[in-house]
Amino acid sequence: MPNVTDILRSAINPRTVAVIGASSDPAKFGGRVMQFLVKHGYAGRIVPVNPNGAPILGLPAYRDIRDAEVAIDVALLAIPAQHLVAALEQCGAARVPCCVVVTADFAELGDEGAARERELVGIAKRHGMRLIGPNCLGFINPHLKLALTSSIALAMDPMPRGSLGLISQSGSMMASMISHAADCGAGFSACVTVGNQADLEICDILEYFIEDEATRAICIYIEGLKDGRRFLELAARCRDAGKPLLAVKAGSSDAGAHLARSHTASLAGSHAAWKAACRVSGVINVDDPESMIDCAHFLVCFPVIAHARVAVISPSGGTIAVTADRLAAAGLELAEPRSQTRDALRTFVPAARPLNPLDVGGLPRERGISAAEDAQALLSADSNVGIVFIVVATTPQLDEKVRRWGQAALAGCKPTVILFTPGTLVDGARAALREIGCPYIDRMDDALRVIRAARDYARVLSAPCHAPSLPLVVPDIETALRSLPRGALTESEAKSLVRAAGIARPAEAIATSAEDAVLAARRIGYPVVLKAAARTVVHKSDAGAVKLGLESDDEVRAAWREIDAGLARQSPPVMLDCCVVQQMICGGVEMILGARWDPQFGALVIAGAGGVLVEILNDTALTLAPVTHERARELLSTLKVWPVLTGARGRTLADVEALVDAFVRVGGLAHALGPRLVELDLNPLLVLGKGVVALDARATLATMN
Amino acid sequence: MPNVTDILRSAINPRTVAVIGASSDPAKFGGRVMQFLVKHGYAGRIVPVNPNGAPILGLPAYRDIRDAEVAIDVALLAIPAQHLVAALEQCGAARVPCCVVVTADFAELGDEGAARERELVGIAKRHGMRLIGPNCLGFINPHLKLALTSSIALAMDPMPRGSLGLISQSGSMMASMISHAADCGAGFSACVTVGNQADLEICDILEYFIEDEATRAICIYIEGLKDGRRFLELAARCRDAGKPLLAVKAGSSDAGAHLARSHTASLAGSHAAWKAACRVSGVINVDDPESMIDCAHFLVCFPVIAHARVAVISPSGGTIAVTADRLAAAGLELAEPRSQTRDALRTFVPAARPLNPLDVGGLPRERGISAAEDAQALLSADSNVGIVFIVVATTPQLDEKVRRWGQAALAGCKPTVILFTPGTLVDGARAALREIGCPYIDRMDDALRVIRAARDYARVLSAPCHAPSLPLVVPDIETALRSLPRGALTESEAKSLVRAAGIARPAEAIATSAEDAVLAARRIGYPVVLKAAARTVVHKSDAGAVKLGLESDDEVRAAWREIDAGLARQSPPVMLDCCVVQQMICGGVEMILGARWDPQFGALVIAGAGGVLVEILNDTALTLAPVTHERARELLSTLKVWPVLTGARGRTLADVEALVDAFVRVGGLAHALGPRLVELDLNPLLVLGKGVVALDARATLATMN
Repeated sequence: MPNVTDILRSAINPRTVAVIGASSDPAKFGGRVMQFLVKHGYAGRIVPVNPNGAPILGLPAYRDIRDAEVAIDVALLAIPAQHLVAALEQCGAARVPCCVVVTADFAELGDEGAARERELVGIAKRHGMRLIGPNCLGFINPHLKLALTSSIALAMDPMPRGSLGLISQSGSMMASMISHAADCGAGFSACVTVGNQADLEICDILEYFIEDEATRAICIYIEGLKDGRRFLELAARCRDAGKPLLAVKAGSSDAGAHLARSHTASLAGSHAAWKAACRVSGVINVDDPESMIDCAHFLVCFPVIAHARVAVISPSGGTIAVTADRLAAAGLELAEPRSQTRDALRTFVPAARPLNPLDVGGLPRERGISAAEDAQALLSADSNVGIVFIVVATTPQLDEKVRRWGQAALAGCKPTVILFTPGTLVDGARAALREIGCPYIDRMDDALRVIRAARDYARVLSAPCHAPSLPLVVPDIETALRSLPRGALTESEAKSLVRAAGIARPAEAIATSAEDAVLAARRIGYPVVLKAAARTVVHKSDAGAVKLGLESDDEVRAAWREIDAGLARQSPPVMLDCCVVQQMICGGVEMILGARWDPQFGALVIAGAGGVLVEILNDTALTLAPVTHERARELLSTLKVWPVLTGARGRTLADVEALVDAFVRVGGLAHALGPRLVELDLNPLLVLGKGVVALDARATLATMN
Repeated sequence: MPNVTDILRSAINPRTVAVIGASSDPAKFGGRVMQFLVKHGYAGRIVPVNPNGAPILGLPAYRDIRDAEVAIDVALLAIPAQHLVAALEQCGAARVPCCVVVTADFAELGDEGAARERELVGIAKRHGMRLIGPNCLGFINPHLKLALTSSIALAMDPMPRGSLGLISQSGSMMASMISHAADCGAGFSACVTVGNQADLEICDILEYFIEDEATRAICIYIEGLKDGRRFLELAARCRDAGKPLLAVKAGSSDAGAHLARSHTASLAGSHAAWKAACRVSGVINVDDPESMIDCAHFLVCFPVIAHARVAVISPSGGTIAVTADRLAAAGLELAEPRSQTRDALRTFVPAARPLNPLDVGGLPRERGISAAEDAQALLSADSNVGIVFIVVATTPQLDEKVRRWGQAALAGCKPTVILFTPGTLVDGARAALREIGCPYIDRMDDALRVIRAARDYARVLSAPCHAPSLPLVVPDIETALRSLPRGALTESEAKSLVRAAGIARPAEAIATSAEDAVLAARRIGYPVVLKAAARTVVHKSDAGAVKLGLESDDEVRAAWREIDAGLARQSPPVMLDCCVVQQMICGGVEMILGARWDPQFGALVIAGAGGVLVEILNDTALTLAPVTHERARELLSTLKVWPVLTGARGRTLADVEALVDAFVRVGGLAHALGPRLVELDLNPLLVLGKGVVALDARATLATMN
């Protein structure tokens, strides 16, 4: 049996396509598909199938696909749900290797639809056939002039041919992206919609594009991934193949995640995990679908990007002021031109003008085009400049200037973003760039996205090939685990995991009465902390169940009484059966370390500012477990609290290396336990002048596995 | 003598215009101006003036404007700098009331150019004449078909007529905004560029637009304001007149501020002060010039905005998922439809689909247009919905759906943002909306800006007319001030200001020797703090010149020695002549309160998270002084640390009212001292369970006034 990529290759590059539910009426799905197939001039054989068998658009049609007696590479089914099962059986009998199911109302409607969807997959499996969809809009292959889709975007003619591979879970978003590409001079090797991914899924199409020679960059609109770890492996293959991989993923908000589910039955998963996965695997994460096309087109035109420090050129002094503001707000950096570049620019730029951003407007008339060209040449040749950003405003000799800028950009290969601030007024200049194949952008927001994507891709290109980090061996973990219950753990139980991972905790003891607590406190030494150990109290501080800085036996007894009374007031009331008596440790910086199991990407490890800052700072860093010390240090240094740890404003240095090591250990623990560890929080973890200590811990183990 | 607005009214709506430096060569400034004047069909009289006096474009020309023997309302001067003085003298002699100087290379080049610029203003003043520019591009008045500008944007024909008044310091940005307006169906009452604002400035033009009946909203691109307080007064008049005032201001970054100076000799001022001023005075601050036109056009079409909770409708399930994510990321809120709306929607929306955002795609065929129309009608009629946001993606019957959406939006008056995600593919639908005068947007970023602008304007409309806050009287302030030096104050000196404003400080004393400090510490009571009182040590903590928690005489002596040794190691070394001995106060929440003098907007008062959080949280709120208790409370509640003050996560409540009162007092102090107080910082100001106390203070008084 041929592998998936082979099946997809012949489906996306077919000699013969069948349309089940073909029609002469362009108002129907099967009518639009036929219309587009014929209109765009697909040179292969088209086999229309419909119940009455009358010719369609001059092509002989069949009542049953088996009657065609020809090898079909791909069949598109655009028929009502109630006829699908029969039609699929016929395709199976006709040995069609791949079917595209446009019909909607399956898993996205809930359980009943999901059951009918499983039935389709069952039929396909029985016949050794693969499915794209259901609830998709088909695909296009502009190189074959093949539009096997009902998307009305294909009313356009010709379809934009190029080297971008597009995978979209949404048919109408594919349409918007195709329309945008056609407008800005980008084009596709193929665009494939996958809908509900009942059988073939994003990763299958991605694998096809990685091997497809016509594809030089890959764009994906994702609502949910069926296999996060496979996606990350393929992302690594994209990087090795030199094909930038860009993605827009729905579900960064609760509402967006909910909608993704109701749209293509996709589970969006944790967006934080998605972003961490992108960073780890070199996926360029974009928040706007049309702009993703701009970014990919740019990366195909300018594949070599050393860094993203920007030199701005514009003939408008006002525009460059605003551009400088926007670059700064987007966290992008202006290049500092080298001294020889500065000297050369000064021969025609007045002394009062800054050199970057550079206003090339209003220079002496004879400099006109020459100044614009020379400025670009000088800044492009400067190794301190990673990206040249030309912001085009109305100016005399605009078309000629823009044409020369575009030609020089493509010839010199320095990544060059050309942004037009006027609208259709300067469409002549846009046409000139499209003609020579130079990318351009129409809005500042999108230009900033392209520069950010270039920065991200420069990082992908320059990232050292990390040796796969060896997971930290946690020898006693299985032993520790056997003694623990499932579900939410008490603080002491959670700490036994922490101890197994080799992270220190304060001296502490369990006490079952006030007097027991007093004895423990004397043993540990005053001052101490007293905390309720009840499994049911999650936010102990909020419940008044944590008493700090107890200095004497009497204070311990009073604290016990107060905790007891506080828990009794809870709704429902909680019985105080035991407390943790803990050594009181002062000073240090409060952090949080944690682990989460993500259904898409597996074990995650998290660090952030702890204590009361958790809520107000919202300052966390997150990555996939396991993690190396090097990567842990890099990640922790992105935290806002990092300067506090490293001794900002005269504060004592904290033991950063011990924190890094604890982060690695929590990662090792999370990796070793896998899906068995639902979540773990060490909060606060105190980073002291020497060492770290976990003052509190919470954990939840999966109830079934 | 007529007032400025009268002069501007007849200049912008002239019967006769003169062009000094008129030419037949469209490559020259004076040639383009003549070409545009004639091409657009200005019906008034045109008086070309140039040295040879030959007719231009069929119009009789003059060697000297005085020869024309006709009353000129406005003259545009497009001549080399060396001829300007003579030409202005001639205009003055010909009693021209207003001249527009296009010529550049004046104050933006530095001191020498500024001197020449002052000479121009002097000539104008002598003749009782007013100037627009220099370094501007003139203006247009589409209602008169008058293009008195050299901007090549006016190659377009016709120019977009409408009700937006535009003021721009940049000529080429005016061009981009005109081009954008023409594309999206917006138009102008007039567009005026002001360049270097040597004489007439933004506020003069603004005042004209406030009084101009054809103008219903005003847009400004600002590089620098000449008179911030006047601008704020005019902003209040805009609000009273029901004319939304929108502004893009360059200079939010250092690079942007620097470029504004080199472009139109403008001092950008503090951007934080600008943003605070916008909030106080109801100016809608936008970061993108073309989008500002979208926002203003929208506010003119939908002038009544109750609130900005959004209902989203789209025929694309993928698009609404992404839209929900983008709204959330932009801090915008989805509306919760009322139950009757929900019930009515459920009659045609499947149960599995969320109702907001609402996917109206793929509904049963017979519902087609009807579903799209009904959904809009139901959500528009719902008072929980402030703004309807229709995201148009490719869908069958698109043009007809969009036309009906547009008509219903204009008829129903519920503010409706229509966004097109496909490009030119759906230009037919765009044309349909332009035809009926319904605004639309082409990019999600811009749609979000429009919704944000609508939210801001809803706040302007609903803001209670704050009674002008009576400045807090600070009775002893002049007495306190007389005893203080100018320049940087010591901690004790700064605290005498704080005390005069009625803000508590800890018990403290000055000590001139270690033994003196011991005596003071005993008097105050242990534990104490010891701090160097040297004027030259600004960051005392960094210099090791603050010793906390001293518990005994010996610890005070040791601390004195350490501070002394530490200061001696400074470069240059500092002699320890005296220290402050201060009561040690524990607990509470550390805040910062401060005041700044801003050259554009006057006294500002600032609050934020204090201590080490100042740097890492970057959490400050800022407003113009003086300030009422009500406004102070509102502003403080926007701080990230606010939940900590009000007792988040079981922390003790802090005395928020005392903090509010201290904020008002610092505002009163800043207002009373005016430019004499350059800056003041109380950091940390400790907010205790009862009251606040300023632990440390820094202040700088102006050295000359």
